[in-house]
Amino acid sequence: MAASSVIHLPIIKVNHADTTEISDALAIEEPLEIRLEFGPKHSRQIQNISVTMRTPGNDQELALGFLFTEGIITQQKDIAHIEHSFIACAENKENTIVVSLNEDTIPNLRNTERNFYTTSSCGVCGKGSISAIRTVSVYEAQDDANFISAAILHELPLSLSKHQKVFADTGGLHASALFMPNGELLFLREDVGRHNALDKLIGAALNDNLLPLTKNILLLSGRASFELVQKAAMAGITVIAAVGAPSSLAVELANEFNITLIGFLRNERFNIYTAAHRILIPDYENTH
Amino acid sequence: MAASSVIHLPIIKVNHADTTEISDALAIEEPLEIRLEFGPKHSRQIQNISVTMRTPGNDQELALGFLFTEGIITQQKDIAHIEHSFIACAENKENTIVVSLNEDTIPNLRNTERNFYTTSSCGVCGKGSISAIRTVSVYEAQDDANFISAAILHELPLSLSKHQKVFADTGGLHASALFMPNGELLFLREDVGRHNALDKLIGAALNDNLLPLTKNILLLSGRASFELVQKAAMAGITVIAAVGAPSSLAVELANEFNITLIGFLRNERFNIYTAAHRILIPDYENTH
Repeated sequence: MAASSVIHLPIIKVNHADTTEISDALAIEEPLEIRLEFGPKHSRQIQNISVTMRTPGNDQELALGFLFTEGIITQQKDIAHIEHSFIACAENKENTIVVSLNEDTIPNLRNTERNFYTTSSCGVCGKGSISAIRTVSVYEAQDDANFISAAILHELPLSLSKHQKVFADTGGLHASALFMPNGELLFLREDVGRHNALDKLIGAALNDNLLPLTKNILLLSGRASFELVQKAAMAGITVIAAVGAPSSLAVELANEFNITLIGFLRNERFNIYTAAHRILIPDYENTH
Repeated sequence: MAASSVIHLPIIKVNHADTTEISDALAIEEPLEIRLEFGPKHSRQIQNISVTMRTPGNDQELALGFLFTEGIITQQKDIAHIEHSFIACAENKENTIVVSLNEDTIPNLRNTERNFYTTSSCGVCGKGSISAIRTVSVYEAQDDANFISAAILHELPLSLSKHQKVFADTGGLHASALFMPNGELLFLREDVGRHNALDKLIGAALNDNLLPLTKNILLLSGRASFELVQKAAMAGITVIAAVGAPSSLAVELANEFNITLIGFLRNERFNIYTAAHRILIPDYENTH
């Protein structure tokens, strides 16, 4: 991640009654506007798609991952190029990015409507949100080619914290990491927004033409919400492990998509919420 | 908070190589659609304002706090009534809430445009986002009637965890809490979304006609982002303490609004990022 993910500021550190003035590292948070350019050569259109508060770095991956997980584009080869634009920002910051589609690609702009996944035709409820994902997902709920050993899972949080460099400096970033079934780290992305960290990760995997990610393990540094499981489902991920707790709707969605969802993965412990058959635990195997 | 904030599901608990099947409590996450009804008696309009993924409970406060912190309404007495609607949801869940304004209240619907605070006229940048808040805030950046002792701050995280009941059950909720300068707890609200927890809290304070909250301390259970400081600024809060890290833009906004921002408040330690003059630390006072 670029050096511009962190800023140093003078602060006062208080330890019991002692105070010291030091320079402290903070995670940078700045808006990123994602614009989409599309249409035939002589009548290209530009549309503002989203503004997200993100940590600068891996912006191209973020834009690509966002467009894919929101169902606006369906494949990496729809993209002609992705570039920052400096026109929109008086301060000349890298806060606008333009994704140009190939001339023959028609984006699904219906999905840019506000809260697409949560305002589906059935009305406002969790079941409707889950149905909406089915309509845009390019991968069927994956079946069972992926088996992960509990021993490998126990190792992942340590591997994450070893590699999470900006967090080590600032304590202020969420992370998403993608592992091989043997525990080898493939990608790690960090951001002030947990959904951005996952979009960056999925964008990186898309760039490397790795989707669907049926054989991998996704590790989330915090909790597992509906939105994060939704993005993972769009990328064909079959095993999600979170260091924190899952929500009810995250579990419901994982269940519907036959995704193995693990929570509270820390200190050699974890909980399995859905699709436990993919996790290899010797004792459990013997008794079931 | 209502019992419907938690659901119990069967899970598999793995501890080293041991597995047990138990019933586990999860924080409920469900969409809430906020609708606004306004206009003169014979031509009332209804507009969908937002859909947020929230934990059920305190929905009226959430809707009220959201409309206020987004600058759509400016005072509690603009509201005629707030009620759940069951029309939109086939499952008859409490997932739509209708806020009815008095006939003579004109909501500021300009502020319902997507990402109002982050797409201001100056272009897309942090400074523009901060300027946008100035245009809708009903309170001036507050001056210095509020002094908090470091000893009181040290006590707050323990007080929070004592009272955070749903988190104790699920490990899955963010909290916002409002304290008196002497450390007495006024309000505590929990949600899967940290912004919702704060909107519920500010809605509760609005209901009790307590704004601006110039004399109180806001405690955030996690990190301090731009969005959370923005909402606090709208409520006239002058002291924000977060258990986690702040982002760069959270610090910048706190600085602009003369808000004292504290981070990493835990284990008798904390960092002061802005407006340190409000924090009474005996040693520091004597040497500065």
